[in-house]
Amino acid sequence: MRLDVVTIFPEYLDPLNVSLVGKARARGQLDVHVHDLRSWTYDRHNTVDDTPAGGGPGMVMKTEPWGDALDTVLADGYETGSRTPALIVPTPSGRPFTQELAVELSERPWLVFTPARYEGIDRRVVDEYARRMPVYEVSIGDYVLAGGEAAVLVITEAVARLLPGVLGNAESHRDDSFAPGAMANLLEGPVYTKPPEWRGGGIPEVLLSGHHGKIARWRRDEALRRTTAHRPDLIERCEPAAFDKKDREMLSILGWAPDPAGEPYGRFWRRTPGMEE
Amino acid sequence: MRLDVVTIFPEYLDPLNVSLVGKARARGQLDVHVHDLRSWTYDRHNTVDDTPAGGGPGMVMKTEPWGDALDTVLADGYETGSRTPALIVPTPSGRPFTQELAVELSERPWLVFTPARYEGIDRRVVDEYARRMPVYEVSIGDYVLAGGEAAVLVITEAVARLLPGVLGNAESHRDDSFAPGAMANLLEGPVYTKPPEWRGGGIPEVLLSGHHGKIARWRRDEALRRTTAHRPDLIERCEPAAFDKKDREMLSILGWAPDPAGEPYGRFWRRTPGMEE
Repeated sequence: MRLDVVTIFPEYLDPLNVSLVGKARARGQLDVHVHDLRSWTYDRHNTVDDTPAGGGPGMVMKTEPWGDALDTVLADGYETGSRTPALIVPTPSGRPFTQELAVELSERPWLVFTPARYEGIDRRVVDEYARRMPVYEVSIGDYVLAGGEAAVLVITEAVARLLPGVLGNAESHRDDSFAPGAMANLLEGPVYTKPPEWRGGGIPEVLLSGHHGKIARWRRDEALRRTTAHRPDLIERCEPAAFDKKDREMLSILGWAPDPAGEPYGRFWRRTPGMEE
Repeated sequence: MRLDVVTIFPEYLDPLNVSLVGKARARGQLDVHVHDLRSWTYDRHNTVDDTPAGGGPGMVMKTEPWGDALDTVLADGYETGSRTPALIVPTPSGRPFTQELAVELSERPWLVFTPARYEGIDRRVVDEYARRMPVYEVSIGDYVLAGGEAAVLVITEAVARLLPGVLGNAESHRDDSFAPGAMANLLEGPVYTKPPEWRGGGIPEVLLSGHHGKIARWRRDEALRRTTAHRPDLIERCEPAAFDKKDREMLSILGWAPDPAGEPYGRFWRRTPGMEE
């Protein structure tokens, strides 16, 4: 997979040399190019921004440097054999970046990232490249950053770990929070390792029992406990068939019951009235 | 504000020297300390992980290095006058990191981050420090990273830009997506700057009209258009009083109507049947 990043802070992307992404690059699984947007400015102040049309606070990134930068980056990629690029535009106004979208992006051969600063990039840039390739305007969460560079690190890491051969142990995807399968839509509960006692705290006995069935049940109960506490929105949306008899017993203990009226709203479970936190 | 980060990839945190956070450090508004967790290992392999109690794939980070590291970091901070630390534990099993939480964290004097790798940290570490200080287990979004370091960059940047004097122009918070005020719960629409024409694309005429009322109305319509397209969940949750007559006209054009039955589900608006995308 080829990755290009155009930014006014190339050094912000230095973590792409570290850890999982760094190793994938060293192995030739990822071909990463970071470009300084200011290389495509031609005035002595290397200007990349100007005041917003229509007034208001903040600055808007100009069309010309982005257009020249993307043309050069795309031409270079095509010349070296890359095909079917997609433009990834990190923006708080985008659609949510999810694990499902990470999977979709991991199947593409070439991603070009345009992390912006200030109030964002002149709209005409996205409109121009949307005529030539798929554009993903994505938000990594409901908070405001100073720029898109941190989002590029997040998206890159989430995508890179899904590439074949990048994670050491293929099994380690299996229990991921948000992964499909038995734990779909449930957060993982607590984990423990040796020693059996540390500062007066022990490991739950069941984990030391060697009884695989009981351990699996305990983990699922803990996942239900944690998900109802931290992400009631995820439980609400679980289809009734997602939970077996034991799950339902645990949910009932945690104060949750089926919500027969919620279906039109995609809500299948609700906290039992009187048991709200 | 003091920030400590304990990690096995200290170089991943190099972006904390760059841009907004780097400048805030240079000005003395942020006092950042990055620590290598492996400094608190005493075997020749600098081991920080071991197999999970109860079996299963992946590895779990051990109690001892984290306990020794956090004890040292906390003692150092207290010695130099820092008080009331909070522990920030990035984990996909946490509660969502939001702009509201960024504001809450920006009011604290001292944040200690524990970005983990592998399947996470032995639970007893969080349990131990939760006895002494507030612990925030937070998730930056519904996707899986290779470790918590990218999340630390995200949280740090979201928090740092809220500190007094860190953003150049105090006004630039005003129109933020997710900021309180007129645009609360709406995503920002497109922005433009000079030149008036670029590669055949112009700037919407109203923005060049100088008519402030019409410009404000256009921006709000575009925000409604973008939010219904990318984040219908945000529109659904807007209380009826959030929208004036003109907003309602625009919502109606976009195929949205009040949802009288949705109130128990926090849903006040829905796509008009037959107008689903």
